[in-house]
Amino acid sequence: MTIKKIELAGTITKFYFNSSIAELKKITAAQNVVVITDENIMAYHARKLKVFNTIVIKAGEAYKNQSTVDEIIERLIELRADRKTLLIGIGGGVVTDITGYVAAVYMRGIQFGFVPTTILSLVDASIGGKNGIDVGLYKNLVGTIRQPDFLLHDLSLLKTLPHSEWVSGFAEIIKHACIKDAAMFKQLQQHNIGFYKKNKTALATLIQRNALIKCKVVQADPFEKNERRLLNFGHTLGHAIENLYQLSHGQAIAIGMVYAAKLSQLTKGFKQVQALVDIFIKYELPVTLEFDYEKVSAVLTMDKKRENNAMNYILLDKIGRGIIMPIPLPVLNENLSAIQKTTT
Amino acid sequence: MTIKKIELAGTITKFYFNSSIAELKKITAAQNVVVITDENIMAYHARKLKVFNTIVIKAGEAYKNQSTVDEIIERLIELRADRKTLLIGIGGGVVTDITGYVAAVYMRGIQFGFVPTTILSLVDASIGGKNGIDVGLYKNLVGTIRQPDFLLHDLSLLKTLPHSEWVSGFAEIIKHACIKDAAMFKQLQQHNIGFYKKNKTALATLIQRNALIKCKVVQADPFEKNERRLLNFGHTLGHAIENLYQLSHGQAIAIGMVYAAKLSQLTKGFKQVQALVDIFIKYELPVTLEFDYEKVSAVLTMDKKRENNAMNYILLDKIGRGIIMPIPLPVLNENLSAIQKTTT
Repeated sequence: MTIKKIELAGTITKFYFNSSIAELKKITAAQNVVVITDENIMAYHARKLKVFNTIVIKAGEAYKNQSTVDEIIERLIELRADRKTLLIGIGGGVVTDITGYVAAVYMRGIQFGFVPTTILSLVDASIGGKNGIDVGLYKNLVGTIRQPDFLLHDLSLLKTLPHSEWVSGFAEIIKHACIKDAAMFKQLQQHNIGFYKKNKTALATLIQRNALIKCKVVQADPFEKNERRLLNFGHTLGHAIENLYQLSHGQAIAIGMVYAAKLSQLTKGFKQVQALVDIFIKYELPVTLEFDYEKVSAVLTMDKKRENNAMNYILLDKIGRGIIMPIPLPVLNENLSAIQKTTT
Repeated sequence: MTIKKIELAGTITKFYFNSSIAELKKITAAQNVVVITDENIMAYHARKLKVFNTIVIKAGEAYKNQSTVDEIIERLIELRADRKTLLIGIGGGVVTDITGYVAAVYMRGIQFGFVPTTILSLVDASIGGKNGIDVGLYKNLVGTIRQPDFLLHDLSLLKTLPHSEWVSGFAEIIKHACIKDAAMFKQLQQHNIGFYKKNKTALATLIQRNALIKCKVVQADPFEKNERRLLNFGHTLGHAIENLYQLSHGQAIAIGMVYAAKLSQLTKGFKQVQALVDIFIKYELPVTLEFDYEKVSAVLTMDKKRENNAMNYILLDKIGRGIIMPIPLPVLNENLSAIQKTTT
């Protein structure tokens, strides 16, 4: 176990890297804890959690909404949760997003920690304090930014993670490489998911490296005024197609990144589109999708990154260096639909 | 008009005292504004607001809940509100609480300002950044703390305020006097509501004085760890009986303050119970209520001021000096029910 204390936006978050869920009993006062988790995690790990009060939600993005929040709040009232209560979200991005959001608004804010159980939440969703829920097709339209008190990694939980979730998580790892870490991009080019599944040390190193990339970007800009926007690489189009076409998050942003790379080629002379396409294929991610541009464009318009009539789009200068470009909506629509016509 | 910039919890809030709603057009960019108000305000002041996009909610505490929040969010999506949008809550505590809450969670936080239209919201509810909604009988169980960008006072809006709302608002003014300002308590003893209704300068001075008392307490303790808890004087029992017995907020906390004064007498030798009873009667507020103590006690238990098995109760040392006392729940229940038996 490696313990690191990392300051994010004025809050010290304790990271227990390469730890074990059994440690939770040691680092918390069990009688004050309420665990929030989903049916899948509960099916495999109920025994490890029996010492805690537990709220079990349905698994999947479809339940990351206000009605699940309402149910959790009803249960917290029944459990007589108060301002001394510590919520612990154990699960993927849906569980941690919803746990962080409930902790931000219940009694005007109570403490919380996370045990991420997917690659995606280990390297991305659990870090940075963004929480929230979806409203209809609009992802994370409602939420706050608030840092957890701790994050605990137990990579043994990945044993029960479906392969499709590994694929989805690697999309965020490749994203980090694209915007911030050319050396890691090269490393990823030499391996594949099978390698990381077998090689525990390589996986632990990769996950910690990615968690720290995310921390560094968030530290530089906790409230997403600038630098942090880079993390949205592939996410603008990605979010729009994710719900409309029932893609996994990783599939959606992989396609989003390919489009953003082509947009970078069109507008900034970016030359490495093929390297991106190749690495996504290597990591079993899609690089193209036939979609209805009008429908997608309607959702794009409601993206949080829109400000008045321009979208802050993330492009690549080169692999390892992301840049932020405000693009007027009509220009964006024209370019994206042109890319679509040449792609599908 | 007097403009004061007051720093609360790291945010500068601009106070436009003794101003006019017509100023809103000058101090904001109308195209970015969405006004949230209720049917009552709209019935009287629609003309003044026609330049802005407006969301009208139903009037009354019964609508300060998640389903109203859901409706507002749907409307914001329709209006294509984004991170540049400024929400302005025009109304009483229900409107400002719900506007502040929506602004805190929509797109993870957008800007907002208030035009309070009741005595209660002018001197209390609009100041300090607490926002929130009720969950069933539990008042403000869900919410955040976040400061508005501005507060604008237009006392001409009070012309249409029902008399019962004046009475309710004066309960908070008397509360401020009890916990912080013995001189103001004396002044209030010499007048009544009729006087302040007629005498505009006295009213403006009184409102500004109370707004500044509230600001000072919040400045000393923005996140309610200590000093700010004084503002809960009368509110613990008050909140519990308010919804259960359909009392106005002012009526409920007046009874709560009388109980807290008697508790102060029992436990701290406080000697001025009669002065409190007299001033409430002078300001047309109730001082007693026949209630079902078991029902009330069940709601008390869920109060946010409870921490494990003790309640942080606000007592008076003397008029003008409130104090915070953690009282174990069994002791509190015993004392409050004893007071109830001698009172009703």
